[in-house]
Amino acid sequence: MKNCLVAQSGGPTVAINATIAGLLSGNNKYKAFDKIYGALHGIEGVMREHFIEFSDERHSDEFINVLKITPAMYLGSCRYKLPKENADSLYEQIFNTFDKYDIDTFFYIGGNDSMDTVAKLSAYAEDKGSDVKIIGLPKTIDNDLVITDHTPGFGSAAKFVASAMTEIYYDSSIYPIKSITVVEIMGRDSGFLTASSILSKNSCIEGPDLVYVPERAFSMEDCIRRTKNLLKSKDSVILAVSEGIRDSQGNYISAEGNTVDEFGHIQLMGVGKILENKLKSEIGIKVRSIELNVLQRCSAHISSKTDIDESFMLGENGIEAATDDISGMMLSLERKSDSPYKVECALADVSEVANQVKALPDEFINKNAPYIENAFFDYAEPLIMGENQTVFKNGVPQYADISHLN
Amino acid sequence: MKNCLVAQSGGPTVAINATIAGLLSGNNKYKAFDKIYGALHGIEGVMREHFIEFSDERHSDEFINVLKITPAMYLGSCRYKLPKENADSLYEQIFNTFDKYDIDTFFYIGGNDSMDTVAKLSAYAEDKGSDVKIIGLPKTIDNDLVITDHTPGFGSAAKFVASAMTEIYYDSSIYPIKSITVVEIMGRDSGFLTASSILSKNSCIEGPDLVYVPERAFSMEDCIRRTKNLLKSKDSVILAVSEGIRDSQGNYISAEGNTVDEFGHIQLMGVGKILENKLKSEIGIKVRSIELNVLQRCSAHISSKTDIDESFMLGENGIEAATDDISGMMLSLERKSDSPYKVECALADVSEVANQVKALPDEFINKNAPYIENAFFDYAEPLIMGENQTVFKNGVPQYADISHLN
Repeated sequence: MKNCLVAQSGGPTVAINATIAGLLSGNNKYKAFDKIYGALHGIEGVMREHFIEFSDERHSDEFINVLKITPAMYLGSCRYKLPKENADSLYEQIFNTFDKYDIDTFFYIGGNDSMDTVAKLSAYAEDKGSDVKIIGLPKTIDNDLVITDHTPGFGSAAKFVASAMTEIYYDSSIYPIKSITVVEIMGRDSGFLTASSILSKNSCIEGPDLVYVPERAFSMEDCIRRTKNLLKSKDSVILAVSEGIRDSQGNYISAEGNTVDEFGHIQLMGVGKILENKLKSEIGIKVRSIELNVLQRCSAHISSKTDIDESFMLGENGIEAATDDISGMMLSLERKSDSPYKVECALADVSEVANQVKALPDEFINKNAPYIENAFFDYAEPLIMGENQTVFKNGVPQYADISHLN
Repeated sequence: MKNCLVAQSGGPTVAINATIAGLLSGNNKYKAFDKIYGALHGIEGVMREHFIEFSDERHSDEFINVLKITPAMYLGSCRYKLPKENADSLYEQIFNTFDKYDIDTFFYIGGNDSMDTVAKLSAYAEDKGSDVKIIGLPKTIDNDLVITDHTPGFGSAAKFVASAMTEIYYDSSIYPIKSITVVEIMGRDSGFLTASSILSKNSCIEGPDLVYVPERAFSMEDCIRRTKNLLKSKDSVILAVSEGIRDSQGNYISAEGNTVDEFGHIQLMGVGKILENKLKSEIGIKVRSIELNVLQRCSAHISSKTDIDESFMLGENGIEAATDDISGMMLSLERKSDSPYKVECALADVSEVANQVKALPDEFINKNAPYIENAFFDYAEPLIMGENQTVFKNGVPQYADISHLN
C-alpha cells in the first residue's frame, strides 16, 4: 500500500477545497496512491488520528466538481503550530501514524504558519532518514506568501471585494447629499485585498476615492483633510480601509476604539466604525461604515474562475511532485506573462516561505496620496477573471456536505 | 404630446430599476406615451424640474436588459415627504410642471412613505379636477407593504441573506472549538428578511440556530440561556438577528448611539456588535458578529430571477394601467398559488397602503422558541428562485451608467 494524507490549516478561503479536488483528480489521472486520507482539523487531526478516507464516491467527477467550488475547509482547520524543540515524542508519534496508514506523502494546505509545519516535519524526516514526503500547498486570501506570484484564495477574495465595492458605489450614489462611506477590508499586515477595491474602477464608476493599506502609516488628520477636500467636488466619498492600518507609532487604529463596559469587559470596535464615528464628528455629514467581514473569504458564489482553476492545478501538480520524490517544498505559482496572462507551477523551498510575510510592493502604492497605482491592475486583474458555475438548489447555493466536521 | 414621468424614492434595492425597465418595455409594446421622463431624486426632482428623458437609446433592448439588473436607483432617491397642509403652492407648482412637460401619468416607485406621496398627489388631482394620473409601484427589501403579497426587492434581498447564511455556515464550521456567530440582518420593524435566513436550511446544512425578529420581544437573559444550551450539543451556534429587535418595554436593544431622521425613524446601529460583546462576556468563548449591511440590498450579482421578473412585470403593467385611466392606486402582487407558484398583478387603493407596516405574520413565528416555522418556506422560497445572468467585465459586474446622478 502507498497512500497519501492531506490536511488544511489557517483561515478559510473559497479556493482551498479546489486544491483537494485537484489532488483527487490528479490521483485519478496518475494513480500515484492507493488511498487518499484526509486529516480533520489540520495537524491536530494527524496527532489525534482523526482521518476520513476519500472513498471511490469521493473520487467521482460529480464530487470533485462540487468540492472545487465549496467555500471554507472541507477537512476543517486548526491554528496549531508544532513546537520546535523538546518535542521528539510528538514528531515520533506523527511519523508512527504515517507508518500505520502507509502514508508516502503528506500534503499540507495553508499559509505561512502552515508552511512552518511543513518545514519542521520535512526537517524531522530528513534528520531521521524517513522516506515520508512532506509537501506544502499554498492558500491565503491575504496573498502574503513570499516567492509565489500569488496565492489561491486571493483572486476570489479580490473579486468579491471589487464586486462589492462596485455595488456599494451604486448604493452610495442615490442621494443628492454629501456623504462618506467607509469600507473595511481584511488584511492585517498586507494591503493586497484592500488594494483590490480599485479593480471596481471602470468606464462607469470611479471606485474608492481613498485607499488605506497597512504598508503606509495612517494619519487621522490627513484622512479628515483629504475627505473634506474631496467633498468639495463630489457628493459621495468612498474610503477603502484595511483592518490593519496603524499610526506612525505602529499602533493599530482599531485599538483606539476599545472601550470598557460597566462590567470591565473590553468592547472591541472595528477600524471602519472608528473612522465612521471620527469622520461624523469632525465633518458632520452622513457617514456609514461597511465591514465586508467573512463574506470576502466565504462568498463562493462569486469566486474567480482563474483562482479556482489554479488552486485545482496546484492539487494535480502536487500528485505529480509526489511521484517525483519531492519533499520539503511548497508548490508555487510563477507568472510567465501579464498579457496574455500565463502562470506555471514551480517549487519553492518551504523553509524560505515559512513565517515570512509579503507586503504590497512599493510600486503599487501611490507616493502622493493614499491610493493605488494603475500598475496594480496588470498584476491583480488577471487573478479575478472568469466566473464559476454555482449550483443553486431552492434558490440558494449548494455545496459539498461537511457533516463529517460535526 | 402625451408623456409620462417616473421617479424613485426611499431606500435602494436591486429590483427597483427593473420596474423602470418594465415601463420602458411596456411603452415599447403599447406605445402609450410619446416620451418617458425620469425625475432625479424622487419628488424633489419633480419640484426642481431635474428631469432626464429616456431617449430612443434608453429604450433599446440592450439598455433595458442592463437596467433591469442594475442595483440601487437609476434615477436617484430622496427621503422627502410632501406636507399635508398649507402647501397649495407646492402642489400647484408640481402640477404646473406636469402640464409644462405634458405629463399624463406620474409613476412613483417606492415603499410606504412613497405611497403617501402618491396618495397626496392623487387626492390633490381629484380635488382640483386634474387629469394627471398618479400611480404607485411598490418596492422595499423589508417586504412590509400591506395588501400586496410581497414587494419587489424583498426576494433578492432574501436570496442574498439565505445565500450569505449558507456561506457563513461553512465558514463557521472549520474549527473544533465552541463558537458563536451573530448575523445582523436589516428590517427595522419587520422580520421578513431575518426570517429568510432559515431558507439556508437544507439537507447539508442546519441554517441558523436562533432567529430573532422585531415582532417578538427580545430577552437578553433568554438568549444567553438558549445559546448556552445549544453549545452543550454543538460547537458552532449561529444567531440571525434583526437590527430592529426590542426588549419587552419596546426599547431597541441597539439603543446606544441612536439618531433620528427627518421622518422620525430611529437610525439603528450595531445590535450584532452589542450581542457579540454580551455573549462573549457572559459565555466566555469565541464570538463574532457579521452585519450584512447594505450588501443585502445592493448585491445585484445574486438577485432573484423571480423578483426581477415580477418587478419588470409591474412596470409593464403600469403602462397598461395608465392607458386604463387608473389613478390613486398602487399596483400589487396577488398570489394565486404556492405550488406551482403563481402571481398576478392587482390594484390596491394607495391610501390603504400609505404609512402602513406589515409585520411578519404570527403563523410564521415559532411559539416556543425564537425560530421560524417551516410554513415560511412555502411563502418565501418561491420568491428567491432563479438567477439572473450578471454581465462581468474585467472580472467585475457591469451595470448601467449612472453618471447623470453626479
